[in-house]
This record gives sequence, structure tokens and C-alpha cells, in this order.
Amino acid sequence: MKIITISREFGSGGRELGRRLADVLGFDYYDREIITAIAQAQGMDEGYVEKALEDHAWQHIPLTYGRSFASSAILQSTQTNLLIEQKKVLDGIARAGKDCVIVGRDADVLLADQKPFSMFVCADLEARIQRCMERAPEGEGLSRKAIEQSIRRIDKARARSREIISDSRWGQGGSYCLTVNTTGWQIKDLTGAVADYIRRWYERSGA
Amino acid sequence: MKIITISREFGSGGRELGRRLADVLGFDYYDREIITAIAQAQGMDEGYVEKALEDHAWQHIPLTYGRSFASSAILQSTQTNLLIEQKKVLDGIARAGKDCVIVGRDADVLLADQKPFSMFVCADLEARIQRCMERAPEGEGLSRKAIEQSIRRIDKARARSREIISDSRWGQGGSYCLTVNTTGWQIKDLTGAVADYIRRWYERSGA
Repeated sequence: MKIITISREFGSGGRELGRRLADVLGFDYYDREIITAIAQAQGMDEGYVEKALEDHAWQHIPLTYGRSFASSAILQSTQTNLLIEQKKVLDGIARAGKDCVIVGRDADVLLADQKPFSMFVCADLEARIQRCMERAPEGEGLSRKAIEQSIRRIDKARARSREIISDSRWGQGGSYCLTVNTTGWQIKDLTGAVADYIRRWYERSGA
Repeated sequence: MKIITISREFGSGGRELGRRLADVLGFDYYDREIITAIAQAQGMDEGYVEKALEDHAWQHIPLTYGRSFASSAILQSTQTNLLIEQKKVLDGIARAGKDCVIVGRDADVLLADQKPFSMFVCADLEARIQRCMERAPEGEGLSRKAIEQSIRRIDKARARSREIISDSRWGQGGSYCLTVNTTGWQIKDLTGAVADYIRRWYERSGA
């Protein structure tokens, strides 16, 4: 069974690359499906789950340490449950045993036992701003400044999310099997090059 | 003209990958030749030049700021001269106009105008220790601990060296076109996969 995990900078095209890799390689593809599954299991709204998992203010609360404020305790408990549920959903995907691409959700860390092919996808800030501006629905164009702020906020949350559950650093080359910079690429052109690299990686490891 | 630059973690096999890429692609290869050229131009010993360029204690001395201690001033002046000479040697390589692979020496930063294909090569600490132990000349085997200390010291110096002349972070995915993790690979098996990726990168950019 082959699992490809994709961590990515916001606006780098990592999600599109993941979907195209799944197409080219004939793998299953998981992205929002994971949020949906967590929400269903917890009887919660999807939007709430997504926001709670992205809002990593709670990282500053050691998970093993009691708090005297009930509101923090409840928040902590909800988010711990969500993280546990996230791990369960990912384990379920692994147990299904089908080759797949998983975008986001710290799947490389949470499924480390499965030895996934872990990727990090990044791009220059300017390239990411451009990509976000191009893909915004018509009439919903955000200002450059608003997009740049979103990029910084979301990437910071992603970095923190990883730090809670891993010693390895988000975005640092050594944390992944392969890191690709999409600056100047069309994702569709990049897909073949990455797919070939992955095929060789699996040939090498005899998987 | 195509320039491939290779930055690497100590013990990751980056140098071997560079040499093999040069062979496979039919490119010139530069590594120690740069130190030799700097030493010759400055009338200095090669070992001294290498040590001076690696000893980045001087990074804490702002290059534009005078010091009241003569010894520091001399040290600063020597190392500034070496850095300038390093840039000159790299510019000379670029002016020669031949496709080449350059290992180390912050060539991706110093030759940024040439838009090189910049790589970072890394590996898990354990894999790097193993590689260092295997390639040590017989009878010169260092202890695990000594190797680990060397790895940390040299990588720290490399990270600092880059920071003096660039805003981008050493080893961070976004600082390079491609980052490969050699853990579990034989470098000879990895070479073809990387060479193919690079060929596609140049096809894409129409270079």
C-alpha cells in the first residue's frame, strides 16, 4: 500500500498537485473528506471542525496539564477530541489498504508508521499571491494585502499544528521525502515530473 | 546556460549527487576548485581559505561597521576579501557560459541573477551518521558522537554563512527549486530521478 502525503504552503498549488497526482497514479484522493468524516463522527458542523483544527491557540496549553478555567478546559477537550478523531479517520484510511494521496491534516506525522511518501509543496510569496488572486471567484477578489495576510496566518497555523505532534519542523527539507517549489510551474506540467520521481522512490524501496 | 547549485547537509551525499548529476547531464563540475581558485588569487593556503570561509564567527560583525580592535578588523577584512573573491570566482564560472553543477559556496545566492536550478540535499541524522562512518578512511573511524558533533557544527556554519548574504533560510524548502531527502536511497539510484526532474524544469522554462 502506497500513501502520498502533501503538506503545503497556502497558495502553492499543493492541493491541485495532490489531485492531479492521484489521477495520474490512479490513487484515491483525500482532502475535505477527512473534515467531513470527523464532523460526522463528532456530530459537529464541518465549518466548526475545520476552524477548530486550524485555530491552534490551544497549542500553548500542555495537553497533559489541567487548567483552572472551565472555558479553556472545554476548548482544550474539544480540540483534543478532534485531533484524536483526525487520527482515527486517517488510521481508517490506512486500514482500507488502498493507495492514496492525502492532502493536509498532518497525515505524514499521524501516519508515520505507514512510511508514506511525504511531500512539502511551496512557492515564492509573490507566486502564491498571484495564484490566490487568479483562483478567487469573480467578484470576490481580495486585495493583495488581504491575501498576503491570509497566507501568513494560515501558514503559521499549519506550522504550529505540526509542532504540537512532531519534533520535525514544518517546511524544513529534512522533514519530508521531497520538497518541490512550484514557482514558475503550471501544476499540470509539474505533475508528471513529480509522479516519475515517486515511481522511482517506490521502485527503490521495493514497495 | 544551465547552472545547478547544490546546498547540502553534511553527510547527506549532496556532493556525490552533484558529481553524478554532472556526469549524467554532461555538465562541468565545481566543488573544491573554487577554494583552489580563491586561494591562488589571494596568495593563501587552501586549508586556511576553507577554514576562514567556514568559520563564521565573523557574521556577528556588521560588515559596514568599524571595530576598535585591530585583530577583529584584520579578521573581518580577510574574510570579507575571501567572500568577495568567492563571488568573483563564481562570476567567472558563470561568464564562461558552460553548463555546470556547483556544490556549496552559497552559489545559489551569489549567482541568483543567473537563475540557477537550486537544490538542497538532506537526510535523517541517523542516515548521515551512517554515511559518514562508511566513507571514513580505514583506521580513521571517528566515534558516532564525534561525527554527530561534526555534522551539527558544520551545518550550523553553513546555515550562518547563508544568512550573512541572504534573507532566505538555509534548508527551508522555499529557498530552493527542489529539496531531496536521500534517506534510504543509494545516491546512484537517486541521480536518474533528479536528473529527469531537472530536464523537465528546463523544458518548462524553455531554457
